[in-house]
Amino acid sequence: MAMSMMIQSHVPAGLNAGINRKSVIRSAHQEVVIDRRSSSKVSNRANRLTESLSNLLHLHVETPPRREIRYTNWDFVGEEKHSTPVMSPKEVISEKWRDLHGCMDWDGLLDPLHPRLRREIVKYGEFAQATYDAFDFDPFSEYCGSCRFNRNKIFEKLGLDKNGYKVCKYIYAMSHIDMPQWLNRSRLGQTWSKDSNWMGFVAISDDEETRRIGRRDIVVAWRGTVAPSEWYEDFQRNLEPIGHGEAKVEHGFHSLYTSKSEFTRYNKSSASEQVMEEVTKLVKFYKEKGEEASLTITGHSLGGALALLNAYEAAASIPGLPINVISFGAPRVGNIAFRNELHQMGVKTLRVVVKQDLVPRMPGVVFNESLQKFDEITGTLDWVYTHVGAELKLDARSSPYLKRGFNLLGFHSQETYLHLVDGFVSGNSDFRSDARRDVALVNKACDMLIDELRIPHCWYQMENKGLVRNAHGRWVKPKREPEDIPFVGEVNSHALQSQRHLQPMYI
Amino acid sequence: MAMSMMIQSHVPAGLNAGINRKSVIRSAHQEVVIDRRSSSKVSNRANRLTESLSNLLHLHVETPPRREIRYTNWDFVGEEKHSTPVMSPKEVISEKWRDLHGCMDWDGLLDPLHPRLRREIVKYGEFAQATYDAFDFDPFSEYCGSCRFNRNKIFEKLGLDKNGYKVCKYIYAMSHIDMPQWLNRSRLGQTWSKDSNWMGFVAISDDEETRRIGRRDIVVAWRGTVAPSEWYEDFQRNLEPIGHGEAKVEHGFHSLYTSKSEFTRYNKSSASEQVMEEVTKLVKFYKEKGEEASLTITGHSLGGALALLNAYEAAASIPGLPINVISFGAPRVGNIAFRNELHQMGVKTLRVVVKQDLVPRMPGVVFNESLQKFDEITGTLDWVYTHVGAELKLDARSSPYLKRGFNLLGFHSQETYLHLVDGFVSGNSDFRSDARRDVALVNKACDMLIDELRIPHCWYQMENKGLVRNAHGRWVKPKREPEDIPFVGEVNSHALQSQRHLQPMYI
Repeated sequence: MAMSMMIQSHVPAGLNAGINRKSVIRSAHQEVVIDRRSSSKVSNRANRLTESLSNLLHLHVETPPRREIRYTNWDFVGEEKHSTPVMSPKEVISEKWRDLHGCMDWDGLLDPLHPRLRREIVKYGEFAQATYDAFDFDPFSEYCGSCRFNRNKIFEKLGLDKNGYKVCKYIYAMSHIDMPQWLNRSRLGQTWSKDSNWMGFVAISDDEETRRIGRRDIVVAWRGTVAPSEWYEDFQRNLEPIGHGEAKVEHGFHSLYTSKSEFTRYNKSSASEQVMEEVTKLVKFYKEKGEEASLTITGHSLGGALALLNAYEAAASIPGLPINVISFGAPRVGNIAFRNELHQMGVKTLRVVVKQDLVPRMPGVVFNESLQKFDEITGTLDWVYTHVGAELKLDARSSPYLKRGFNLLGFHSQETYLHLVDGFVSGNSDFRSDARRDVALVNKACDMLIDELRIPHCWYQMENKGLVRNAHGRWVKPKREPEDIPFVGEVNSHALQSQRHLQPMYI
Repeated sequence: MAMSMMIQSHVPAGLNAGINRKSVIRSAHQEVVIDRRSSSKVSNRANRLTESLSNLLHLHVETPPRREIRYTNWDFVGEEKHSTPVMSPKEVISEKWRDLHGCMDWDGLLDPLHPRLRREIVKYGEFAQATYDAFDFDPFSEYCGSCRFNRNKIFEKLGLDKNGYKVCKYIYAMSHIDMPQWLNRSRLGQTWSKDSNWMGFVAISDDEETRRIGRRDIVVAWRGTVAPSEWYEDFQRNLEPIGHGEAKVEHGFHSLYTSKSEFTRYNKSSASEQVMEEVTKLVKFYKEKGEEASLTITGHSLGGALALLNAYEAAASIPGLPINVISFGAPRVGNIAFRNELHQMGVKTLRVVVKQDLVPRMPGVVFNESLQKFDEITGTLDWVYTHVGAELKLDARSSPYLKRGFNLLGFHSQETYLHLVDGFVSGNSDFRSDARRDVALVNKACDMLIDELRIPHCWYQMENKGLVRNAHGRWVKPKREPEDIPFVGEVNSHALQSQRHLQPMYI
């Protein structure tokens, strides 16, 4: 986290926007002159930083060329755009849900991207985004590393209450491997947990959404990590076996997915056990009701890696259940045997990848599937990381709303992914001009939008970092609502349906 | 701004807090263990940055020694402290207001600091702080560089409505000298002003406060700038004459104070003319009512320099009016003749200075009043910058709430000054244990408080940087309230008492 945060804070708005000090955009309504002089000084500094980081990562960074772009058809400042609905009306897809769920490996649906598939990808991607938006990153909070809201109100709090799903369970993870950069930990001694982090949730489609999409959809959304640079040290070390065959996966991901300890409160069972118990229970429940069910596993970045491990396990233990993974900016996870087993078990994987994003090149920047042509030389290659499934490749340069220039964090950001999916028509066409998703969201936690949009960078922040002025005039951090305090029962028992009025059980 | 912002954002909470990775604080109530491992990596980086900055400034930086401090009498986490009022009851000072206003140069009142003087210093210091808190720093706002609220509600909005004063006028400044680092400018083409910034206000005590303090008090508060590093290039260049004698002052400060242009909206009259017109009018008004009046001019940093220029002019043009300046962390302004003329005209100056703050050493880090002992060598020294008046010297190390270690921005921050004034008893005694001012305020825009207090750094921020979700689900920057749009009439005419329902007159 630390490294990428720093990079971000180095890059003032407008930095990557071009070489010209002033640019003039003409729209039907007015002329906007953006003065970039103020940022020029810092620019060199940030470029140097980017460069050294790229060296640190031993990566060849593809920097989009700095070319002048004319946005003749784009109205960046017109206010009428503010009153366009952010979503198209929902369409019924019950007839073709299997195709959209990937039963034919999305053949013919990706380029051009089928509008209804686009909508579903965005829907699942927003579940992945929710795991970031609800996460408590505050190191001075005793609940740092947990979800800020309980599962009954998370979607409402995030403005996603119309998505047609309900969260049934939260997932917590720990790791036996020392991954200091992964765990978000409170700096206080007395905390809800010293070992575990909230790692995602299981959700289920409600009746209305179930009718629209043609089956009862179980969703698992895995939280990722924001900072690609941290990974480099931790991962790419070694593969460890999974299953009974030749399949191997990265040991760090596997540790997160499977670690547990009797001495913890939230990981007496592992993330794997938590999620599988819930999914199995849901599948059984709806099967007994005679409903058809599907499992859709999603995640961004590290979350995408966990999604794949989750899919592998679910496919092995629940035969016949249609399972897919929709991952965003996910790194490689395992070797070729791992990929082959996933294929054989019928797991359908759609990897959404931004061309300029570095993370999908990890681990295995050097040793990856492109080495297969040297098969004779390298032997069975069971140690080579490989990607899985179908790929939806997006180009950050396709969007007229995004700045040019290299932006490590911006290219990897899930909101950038969702924006690019929303605007994707086909590999050789322009950004979709009637894309409706709110462009402002892109800058929630990065600095990617062109100045003309007037959206501040990294704007997703709490008022006064959560401090409020009490009746005595003092600024204090209010206590968390009791109903939002992580409750140990939510992990280890399903008997309790409501967390309200229960005493928190952390120390 | 840029440089210091970056430094700040480099320094995560807890960074300067010591060498030990873990520290244990025992209070009567509980034991708090602070884990500092997470910040250790970044620590070296920030230290290097600080070092190179210090080299850049060609300054010898006094870094407080890193020693272990035991806070046996301090309760950092006890919640009962949260319900202590932030202010002592107001005491009547009408009998001795002249002494507190400096008529005897605060002789015998500063060490130990007289409790009633302490309270008055904090009161004026909060006016100076208000000029920052209300300022629109947002480069994507078309009102960047203005005050966010109109003068009738600024104190209420900042929680200062019980201070006993009312703002009568806003002051705007521009500069003919190229001071790009000074002017906060919108990056948009269409803005309220391309030349001027809101620079402070004139306020007047209400009847109740007037009774308490024994006279009608006119206050002028000047806004400063937050970033000392920027100054170094701009200032310390040359002195220019002021008045009719030998007095000379730094040309950058003088330009800000006196620049005007017919081609601007807010500086058809200079800051000097705006403030003097208002002060003269108020003095005349209350004189005719038979009331005694005083003028108290305050400012932090650059604002303290402007306060001195303002006092010089007011003393020359309104003889007999008791005038004082209470400045915080202000740089030197002029030469020895300037200081002597101020003394002769009876201007009383109280300079509040934090020992570790670099800004009061500028300009003239090399050539300053300490050179007077070489008088014979250097001649008349009319080109040497010198400080003016009495000094209240504060030591950042006196406060158990503040981190050890060098913190460029933190030592200079006005909230740090106010905290140290509040805790100052005398030069050789401990921090005042019954100091009541809210300690959390210190971290509003810097990272100075020890971790044990659990106050995030730089916490003074707007929710989502001012973006709000509109009825269509889109994140937009709402328009400023019409009554808060800078109104050109407020500068050039006094006929209009209310700005309400007036159309904004910017382009």
